[in-house]
Amino acid sequence: MGKKNALYAQSGGVTAVINASACGVIEACRQHKDKIGTLYAGQNGILGILQEQLIDTSKELTSAITALKHTPGGAFGSCRYKMKDIKDSQAEYERLIAVFRAHNIGYFFYNGGGDSADTCLKVSQISAQLGYPVQAIHIPKTIDNDLPFTDCSPGFGSVAKYVAVSTKEASLDIASMAASSTKIFVLEVMGRHAGWIAAAGGLAAEEAGDAPHIIVFPEIPFNREQFIAKVSATVKEKGYCVVVASEGASYADGGLISGSVNKDAFGHQQLGGVAPALASMVKHSLGYKYHYALADYLQRSARHIASKTDVEQAYAVGQAAVEKAIEGKGAIMITIERGTGKKYSWSLGEAPLAKVANVEKKMPRSFISKDGFGITQKARDYLQPLIAGEDYPPYKDGMPVYPRLKKILAPKKLDTDFDC
Amino acid sequence: MGKKNALYAQSGGVTAVINASACGVIEACRQHKDKIGTLYAGQNGILGILQEQLIDTSKELTSAITALKHTPGGAFGSCRYKMKDIKDSQAEYERLIAVFRAHNIGYFFYNGGGDSADTCLKVSQISAQLGYPVQAIHIPKTIDNDLPFTDCSPGFGSVAKYVAVSTKEASLDIASMAASSTKIFVLEVMGRHAGWIAAAGGLAAEEAGDAPHIIVFPEIPFNREQFIAKVSATVKEKGYCVVVASEGASYADGGLISGSVNKDAFGHQQLGGVAPALASMVKHSLGYKYHYALADYLQRSARHIASKTDVEQAYAVGQAAVEKAIEGKGAIMITIERGTGKKYSWSLGEAPLAKVANVEKKMPRSFISKDGFGITQKARDYLQPLIAGEDYPPYKDGMPVYPRLKKILAPKKLDTDFDC
Repeated sequence: MGKKNALYAQSGGVTAVINASACGVIEACRQHKDKIGTLYAGQNGILGILQEQLIDTSKELTSAITALKHTPGGAFGSCRYKMKDIKDSQAEYERLIAVFRAHNIGYFFYNGGGDSADTCLKVSQISAQLGYPVQAIHIPKTIDNDLPFTDCSPGFGSVAKYVAVSTKEASLDIASMAASSTKIFVLEVMGRHAGWIAAAGGLAAEEAGDAPHIIVFPEIPFNREQFIAKVSATVKEKGYCVVVASEGASYADGGLISGSVNKDAFGHQQLGGVAPALASMVKHSLGYKYHYALADYLQRSARHIASKTDVEQAYAVGQAAVEKAIEGKGAIMITIERGTGKKYSWSLGEAPLAKVANVEKKMPRSFISKDGFGITQKARDYLQPLIAGEDYPPYKDGMPVYPRLKKILAPKKLDTDFDC
Repeated sequence: MGKKNALYAQSGGVTAVINASACGVIEACRQHKDKIGTLYAGQNGILGILQEQLIDTSKELTSAITALKHTPGGAFGSCRYKMKDIKDSQAEYERLIAVFRAHNIGYFFYNGGGDSADTCLKVSQISAQLGYPVQAIHIPKTIDNDLPFTDCSPGFGSVAKYVAVSTKEASLDIASMAASSTKIFVLEVMGRHAGWIAAAGGLAAEEAGDAPHIIVFPEIPFNREQFIAKVSATVKEKGYCVVVASEGASYADGGLISGSVNKDAFGHQQLGGVAPALASMVKHSLGYKYHYALADYLQRSARHIASKTDVEQAYAVGQAAVEKAIEGKGAIMITIERGTGKKYSWSLGEAPLAKVANVEKKMPRSFISKDGFGITQKARDYLQPLIAGEDYPPYKDGMPVYPRLKKILAPKKLDTDFDC
């Protein structure tokens, strides 16, 4: 029967380091050519797999694969496409298995967040049911840091570093100008339901009382009066006030602080507009001149200021997925485990996908200060190692060098096309 | 009569490298202790001078002064405060001279943009009229790059690099997701009247057709139909469209694309909201899912991704101001002159303040492509050297080390306070 081929795919919102995981997968497969045949990558994630658009990674130069480690975005394309339950979407799962069978795929490496962990589990289950067993391994990735069983999720550390550094730099700016100009600066950051990213802004403060003075978490029901009182007190004491606000922050009744709400393909709300809403509250209540920034995609693509720890972990989880597959494992997610010593250390482990899928890790209340507007020492101790170290991309003529792949598609083997 | 003291002040919006200029001034003064006495710095710019709040820079450690070269924001504080005409504001100018006289100030180094060049000239004139001549030298600084007679303005190169790098990184992000998700990304950048910063976004493109696909300049009257047509054609061809938009972009009748408009102390309009306005136009006309980012203060404080060329020029103009003062010069601005060779080179020169004040350098039309939505090779040739080189700050525990100054005020010598 011979060697099986492997298939890698990226899923959901991309990060500054998801390609480092891809690099780990590809380099590990190349090191194990005796056990794994060709490694394909789904073009635009699972959508490309359904449409039998498989990129043949063996056609890519070694140097281009190495460069993935420092290139942001999703080099093979990602997608927002949630597979439904098996009973509602039998045809889709059967099509997946047909593609796997046609290309002799024995290993499936799915690189994503909570939704793709769920898909990865279903692929594992359906492949067994349909008599074509596939070792499906989930490679964790999410800037939201909300995957369970892993100490952190690759992608988060680099967003955290971007937000902490940006908060610090913008704070120095506003501190210089506050005497005669802007007194309030609000930085809006990502994080739908969990405040991990907003919490990272707190790392900008070296001493108590340093900026950011207020963090608005999705975990804490927003109280306008308390917020305005804290802004007012901070401006009186410090001369200015820096706020880091999570896009998902909401009132006690669940109403979002931001006005407009759309939904994406996963049924997730697409948010935005917390920063202008907060700034305008302050302007109306206190009259202060404000500025606000909306980092949006800049925060999750900022490879130029990636965390070295994050890059190393992203690479390692990709590599480990291949090694576990060779050991015969499947239906697992690779996890990052924190050492128990005082000095930060980490190693890799695994968790059964059946337990991972659709579980969301919330930020513990003990990470948020009593007044709900800051982070505790416990949070700092958790967050700080994740942003440690710099890992700069190479530059040419002042710009980072982010090479392109050839992305040559493997010839199709199935007779039919498939509409998603 | 002995040595005269010197006074340095920062004015207007701060930059990632204005402290490098401060470092140049302070280190040069320390090298010329035989000719220049104590160097003071106005706390919060000229406001602090009027209130006789003079920071004694001789109290700062050598290491803290060296660190200014890599620290963003305005270390001594800046202000938005435009001195009026001499006839409307005689008392203010007399107060300035009184402070200068009380502290034996013979050299005034004013670090700012067009408005502060004007103030610097007036200080020079009034000091002569009042019989207390001061050598007033203007040190150029503005992210807007709109000062005349100088090839570029310190502060611009670093914003340009931030915008170019951010545009490139966000473009890789959206390119990965466009098949099933966001198709339009708009990055809003600063630049009230001149599109220099927006133009820098164009450096993200390596080849024709690369992102950014559209740049919206304040110099080109905005035409909604042409914009929508270009977005539509780009999405059809590339699958997505990246837009860099200047905050000051407006319609042919002068109406801003952004909705709300406030005015700052200089009478300048305070803008914002071009990105959501453009994104929403696209959504309404073409139905595409969009994202937008508003870099705001992040762009001008991003010392972590500063241009090495910019840092070196910022330091050099500060140093040169002191050297010109020692040569007996005044009422000048230090300029940066570009060499005529094919390889980029620069040297320093000077321009009489009488010619500089209140002249705004616009971006030449020849820098903008015929269709008004891109930059030309001429623009690339001008811009590229200004973002060249990286100059990373030192890091500790994952964060850049941006030390604080002691900022010890010199004892007041005047009997009276002064209300600004």
